[in-house]
Amino acid sequence: MYTFKQIQEIVEQNIKRIPLDKEPKGLYEPIRYILSIGGKRIRPALVLVAYNLYKDNIEDIIQPALALEVFHNFTLLHDDIMDKADIRRNQPTVHKKWSENVAILSGDAMTIKAYELIAETKPQFLPAVLKVFNKTALGVCEGQQYDMDFETRLDVSEKEYLEMIRLKTSVLIAASLQIGALLAEAPENDVQNIYDFGINLGLAFQLQDDYLDSFGDVKIFGKKIGNDILSNKKTFLLINALKNADKDTYEQLIRLIEKKEYGPEEKIKSVLEIYKKTKADDLLKEKMAFYYEKAIKSLNSLSVEKDKTQILYDFAEKMMYRQK
Amino acid sequence: MYTFKQIQEIVEQNIKRIPLDKEPKGLYEPIRYILSIGGKRIRPALVLVAYNLYKDNIEDIIQPALALEVFHNFTLLHDDIMDKADIRRNQPTVHKKWSENVAILSGDAMTIKAYELIAETKPQFLPAVLKVFNKTALGVCEGQQYDMDFETRLDVSEKEYLEMIRLKTSVLIAASLQIGALLAEAPENDVQNIYDFGINLGLAFQLQDDYLDSFGDVKIFGKKIGNDILSNKKTFLLINALKNADKDTYEQLIRLIEKKEYGPEEKIKSVLEIYKKTKADDLLKEKMAFYYEKAIKSLNSLSVEKDKTQILYDFAEKMMYRQK
Repeated sequence: MYTFKQIQEIVEQNIKRIPLDKEPKGLYEPIRYILSIGGKRIRPALVLVAYNLYKDNIEDIIQPALALEVFHNFTLLHDDIMDKADIRRNQPTVHKKWSENVAILSGDAMTIKAYELIAETKPQFLPAVLKVFNKTALGVCEGQQYDMDFETRLDVSEKEYLEMIRLKTSVLIAASLQIGALLAEAPENDVQNIYDFGINLGLAFQLQDDYLDSFGDVKIFGKKIGNDILSNKKTFLLINALKNADKDTYEQLIRLIEKKEYGPEEKIKSVLEIYKKTKADDLLKEKMAFYYEKAIKSLNSLSVEKDKTQILYDFAEKMMYRQK
Repeated sequence: MYTFKQIQEIVEQNIKRIPLDKEPKGLYEPIRYILSIGGKRIRPALVLVAYNLYKDNIEDIIQPALALEVFHNFTLLHDDIMDKADIRRNQPTVHKKWSENVAILSGDAMTIKAYELIAETKPQFLPAVLKVFNKTALGVCEGQQYDMDFETRLDVSEKEYLEMIRLKTSVLIAASLQIGALLAEAPENDVQNIYDFGINLGLAFQLQDDYLDSFGDVKIFGKKIGNDILSNKKTFLLINALKNADKDTYEQLIRLIEKKEYGPEEKIKSVLEIYKKTKADDLLKEKMAFYYEKAIKSLNSLSVEKDKTQILYDFAEKMMYRQK
């Protein structure tokens, strides 16, 4: 069996081999650029890890595994246009470095490149893999749409929020594991359990991300703290604070959201106080633990020996490491 | 055998049945909208026409045929953002009616919807159809990129221009015919010939479009005359006028392109005179006839009886009807 790190390196080498030194340069150079500026290659690695639980010849499925990485980077590219983000992984985003039109079109070409990689699936598995990939890709778009819709709403429910992060974050992680298991002809129950592991781990991870954005240490989180608060993002914390606040606190929170008279430091500090007062932070931690435990239970249910699945227990722990 | 009109009606009915009454509305409603505002459904119709040359049960391949229409409309949606076009088929474009972000994301979802329809291809044909579709879709993106690149260049060659319109217009027409023939298990030579027919007819059609944009009758063309001239589009006419003009005429043409001192009427009139003087119009007509004849030759080479292929001769003539 390969280690996670070995698999990440195999993925990295193979990403470099995707033929992108092609004309027209204006189309392919931004794709090469965004694929070259890093990332942990989690999704293709998970395809290979899941496959490797059952079979050794991971080199046979590298192309469809890469599709997940190319698709993921396409979503980042287009999301960055929509979010007007200037920086991604400490580098200028594609629409900043080139232009919006270049970012739209090279993103479109990336989607198709992802499908070219999917098309290299062995024919007997192609219908099933293509179906999972389509459903997942559409789910990611739906998640992004919900996320944008929530910007203009104050009445987002916890259920709606969880569905949004399931679509925006979890389904691609879960589908990576599922595709790996499908290609390895894993038992049906295992395919479902490894998918559920991905869904629940993704939810726990995203909740943790919400927590760290408000309560984290900039050194561990790697991003500035308080961004969600400043942009009034309808996170799990804000949704629960709005729901559980008493009348005075609710009105104070609405003022903090709607008025522009507060300085950033002041706004962050006051909102954090309300999060604590309404116990939104405790609720988040409970929910996060709930999904993490669910993820582990799904992992426990796999038919594979423990010494093989250890790689996924370690991965799950590492994903949640930041909060410790 | 079905008539072209019958096939167009079958396509139209089935487009209405694509399930798009779904949440989130912000994602699916723009897709429903752009698919509902018309168009002649040429591409899916050609899939079915090509199939129907060999087989009768066209209802079996409607889903993959629709993929070509959904993909085509996706390209219009994103092209309209890039071209800042406000109107499409006499209706506001998606980015005008909603927003750029909505247009980007619903376009992305449309690409995936197209692949969902492709995925309904019978498994034994799926690898071949997916491969053709991927190559074609990527070609269309390349064509759009070349088109954008040409905006800032004065040295575009005729060869480069023809390659651009081959990618931007012809390959999707040709692939539609090819996919229909593939699904019908047509002889290999026929698959190639019907593809070549599509490529050459597409080139002839696009050259005619260039001609009509400069020399057409607004009543027949359906669009304002002179748009290409006003936007300095590097069409076959402009490229050949620049190439064949004497020194004085060349300098006059460059002034017309670069200076903003000319009124639109004056600019169109002067450029048209140069097109005639340099015989760019005659060159275009020759080239158009050349590709049209090539298209007909490919059609003549099909192994199918003439009474069956008549539908494609009629289609080709109708495509070129406007210039008569």
